[in-house]
Amino acid sequence: MRIKKNNVIFAMSKNNQPVAHVSSGSQVIFETCDCFFDQILDETMTFNELDWNHINPATGPIYVEDALPGDILKIEIKKISLTRDFAIMVTGHQLGVIGDQLSDNHIYKVPILDNQAILQDHIHIDLNPMIGVIGVAPKGDDISCGIPCQHGGNMDCKEIAQGATLYLPVNVPGALFALGDLHAAMGDGEVCVSGLEISGEVEVVISVLKNSALPTPLIVNPHMISTVASSPTLDEAAVDATKQMVKLIKQYSNLSEADIITILSAKGDLRICQVVDPQKTCRFEITQSLAKQLSVIL
Amino acid sequence: MRIKKNNVIFAMSKNNQPVAHVSSGSQVIFETCDCFFDQILDETMTFNELDWNHINPATGPIYVEDALPGDILKIEIKKISLTRDFAIMVTGHQLGVIGDQLSDNHIYKVPILDNQAILQDHIHIDLNPMIGVIGVAPKGDDISCGIPCQHGGNMDCKEIAQGATLYLPVNVPGALFALGDLHAAMGDGEVCVSGLEISGEVEVVISVLKNSALPTPLIVNPHMISTVASSPTLDEAAVDATKQMVKLIKQYSNLSEADIITILSAKGDLRICQVVDPQKTCRFEITQSLAKQLSVIL
Repeated sequence: MRIKKNNVIFAMSKNNQPVAHVSSGSQVIFETCDCFFDQILDETMTFNELDWNHINPATGPIYVEDALPGDILKIEIKKISLTRDFAIMVTGHQLGVIGDQLSDNHIYKVPILDNQAILQDHIHIDLNPMIGVIGVAPKGDDISCGIPCQHGGNMDCKEIAQGATLYLPVNVPGALFALGDLHAAMGDGEVCVSGLEISGEVEVVISVLKNSALPTPLIVNPHMISTVASSPTLDEAAVDATKQMVKLIKQYSNLSEADIITILSAKGDLRICQVVDPQKTCRFEITQSLAKQLSVIL
Repeated sequence: MRIKKNNVIFAMSKNNQPVAHVSSGSQVIFETCDCFFDQILDETMTFNELDWNHINPATGPIYVEDALPGDILKIEIKKISLTRDFAIMVTGHQLGVIGDQLSDNHIYKVPILDNQAILQDHIHIDLNPMIGVIGVAPKGDDISCGIPCQHGGNMDCKEIAQGATLYLPVNVPGALFALGDLHAAMGDGEVCVSGLEISGEVEVVISVLKNSALPTPLIVNPHMISTVASSPTLDEAAVDATKQMVKLIKQYSNLSEADIITILSAKGDLRICQVVDPQKTCRFEITQSLAKQLSVIL
């Protein structure tokens, strides 16, 4: 099934009407706009010309049959394709980490060629395509697609990439899953307020897990397992992501919390996803090698 | 020159008496106690038996001839040797990230064998020996060796390892440099409040740089360059580390701050060093490959 990019939402909401129904185990391809709703095509555009009410669109939502509150949604990211030969970056006054030092706003059109992005005509960087916004409807109030929280959303985590599996909670019947906001590349932090924003397509396989108590959001790939948490401050997000990893390991082992936290202190990595959205996002990462020794098989 | 481990300080201070004088370019070997001043030898010991006034000793300080306020101290870490076949870890009530969930205190004696640490009898992890406390005297008030700040100190950054070069400010004549608190291994975050605490020896070459405006602390190794910052909150440390990297690149290129921050957003990584000391520490890391494209040669 293919979900066209004219089916977008700007907030995750239990009241959103699903654009399609799929059964557990279905393959779905989402066409996605960039985070600016594909409004910026060149550097001559100004911030004033942008419709800021249409930012961070997510394609969807889709209703997953049999998904009920308390279940877990498993999203296998099979393929990410970029559908443009350029990306857009922005930064400016009061945007990003050095926004207090910038007086003007800036739009950058970044060419993409041979799987590299070319910044400032001479800086060549390898791409690491990833999904910025991915989530389900929250149980309570609507949450703007620009905000990350327990339901997923704008986590801007570079590990949400091709080959990874993401686990999210199901809060409402059908889950109401949506995704968008691809980045052709991004570093941890997303410090200027944007990644290499680009349109694309994402192929996923979506399944419902019953009777699972996995902490969510959770990311698994062949190399690592990460618990993800978002909070108003980085300090809180760091604590929450770590506690979620302790909780995960506790489900699989007989070790005490004290035993687990010392192992994580010795060998796990507390990392930053982004520090520029309305909530900050951290992840706690362990290698698959350590996970296997802890009997965590995911 | 060799500095014996009976020459220790528990605070970095302009009033500390140097235990040796060396000229710029000297090789120095520091013998170091573990962060518990080698007080814990087995798991039967209790927190009550520890002398908590003698924690985080740093060996030194040494007076570097010609080092004057405004200069930069360059410390090349040539070799880290561990001098024990076990490490100590502690966690407990109100210690580390899950200290609110722990009611008791815990001491772990961790065997080290064949370049691996063995936790809980069956978890084998590779070592990544690193220096926890390394710094110079601050200009103003004394700073406990347990606290990281602009002068260095207890940064607990796993990149301060063999093969790395650390740049620190010189705040007082002679710099009054000291180091200690080796970890046989540690992950980013140091989430239980300790690494694999161990005694050892560190061989460094110390030089004075005149007329340098490098932002400090700064770490360089063959793979990456990192600016380091410590602050009361992780949010502040994240901002400061990023701004220091922008400042570094600005010294070497003609790019604007906006140009630089977008490149860092696309390809740099904002990372956590530790979240458990009285001040939190972040680093902003760029690869040497990106640094070369930005004409940052270090």
